[in-house]
Amino acid sequence: MAPRWKGRTAEAKALADPISKIVSDLQSSLLQSEAHASLSGSSALLPVEPQHAEILTRACFGRPIITADKVNQWFQLSLEEAFYLSHHLGCLKITHHQGTTCSIAELWQYMKSKIANFPHYYKAYSHLRTKNWVVRPGSQYGVDFVAYRHHPSLVHSEYAVIVLSEGGSSSDDGVDGRLMVWSDLYCTIRLCGSVAKTLLVLTVNKNGHGTVSPTTLDGYSVEERSIRRWSAEQNREDQVAAANGTK
Amino acid sequence: MAPRWKGRTAEAKALADPISKIVSDLQSSLLQSEAHASLSGSSALLPVEPQHAEILTRACFGRPIITADKVNQWFQLSLEEAFYLSHHLGCLKITHHQGTTCSIAELWQYMKSKIANFPHYYKAYSHLRTKNWVVRPGSQYGVDFVAYRHHPSLVHSEYAVIVLSEGGSSSDDGVDGRLMVWSDLYCTIRLCGSVAKTLLVLTVNKNGHGTVSPTTLDGYSVEERSIRRWSAEQNREDQVAAANGTK
Repeated sequence: MAPRWKGRTAEAKALADPISKIVSDLQSSLLQSEAHASLSGSSALLPVEPQHAEILTRACFGRPIITADKVNQWFQLSLEEAFYLSHHLGCLKITHHQGTTCSIAELWQYMKSKIANFPHYYKAYSHLRTKNWVVRPGSQYGVDFVAYRHHPSLVHSEYAVIVLSEGGSSSDDGVDGRLMVWSDLYCTIRLCGSVAKTLLVLTVNKNGHGTVSPTTLDGYSVEERSIRRWSAEQNREDQVAAANGTK
Repeated sequence: MAPRWKGRTAEAKALADPISKIVSDLQSSLLQSEAHASLSGSSALLPVEPQHAEILTRACFGRPIITADKVNQWFQLSLEEAFYLSHHLGCLKITHHQGTTCSIAELWQYMKSKIANFPHYYKAYSHLRTKNWVVRPGSQYGVDFVAYRHHPSLVHSEYAVIVLSEGGSSSDDGVDGRLMVWSDLYCTIRLCGSVAKTLLVLTVNKNGHGTVSPTTLDGYSVEERSIRRWSAEQNREDQVAAANGTK
């Protein structure tokens, strides 16, 4: 399925302004201002200057919190986003509500205490982000994430992403429960079809590594599978023959 | 959600010709002709006269098998349909491929050997059928059944039905796996919304009865739950106040 750009000039705009560059600009910008976010439940709150708000929006990290306060602006980051900025890009410090900066190990413990399968979800999130996909929450479509080729203002999301763990629901700390029965798979594929997305199943394999520290993530592997409906009508033998020029 | 009739005259047509009457006509017609269907894998094949084909179609049991044979017509019945006609309406004999008529107990064993959770699915199917809903397979939408208020030529299906068993996946012979995780529920509700159906979850409780014979089905109970999205926008306090005339 080809990307569905929003308007004629969107593709050219996206090509001229690659996500890798935008994320790298965000990294420099946050580093320069020594940005600090604070943990708050299942998210991290980042107070931002107007120029940061603009680059965070362009890079599609977090969402602005609307308040009556004209001077101070805040961005709410998901735990995956906060950990990616902090651990992978190294451009964000994160503090407890007491104000002390968390070490990466403390942060890792906190994330796991909030989301039981955080290591799997984060591995999937970072897997796509490092390939310059824009990754946003997918709960609206009943999936874990949606992935965009570029900013959502320029293009519709292409993939509905479900994260599974090797071994499925039988493993102790795996991601369980999705696509275990046919009817769930049918339902998901039918929904993906009706919203013009491709179902992307990311199976995270821990390869025997535990979840004791973030460094074990390097040992994890991610298998990518895209699942589509196969329509006999659109896959007829004579069309294939015609395409091969053998008819 | 109101029923979505197909055309202006559809509702009047449906009212003039209730499903209960059509099914009762089908029952007499099959009884009179001493109809016999034969088991074939996960379905039963019923050779039919043209007048039977017409009433089976009106009552929405089975589907015609298209062949080049103009004289002999066949209907393919699902196992739930065959068992309902045979056991509940008592108007259909079912034979093995050797040609001997199956007893209800033999049939029950056969059904369970083909569909592990047949007792649950059949209980849900017969629960809706006895209430004069037209029940068809739901695999197209990733659910177990779809339910129509009347014939599908007159009205769109109103409910997407998922069958669960009390105790869920932990029970030995229960219906497992659906709606166990939030993302699956979101996905299903979103799909139901986009195809204008209401999600109906039928939870079958065996109340301690086994699956040894079809008579135990009478001891099973069925809990009905319909699940919809709740939109804050459409449920504002001032609308409620206005509706109550207190504003």
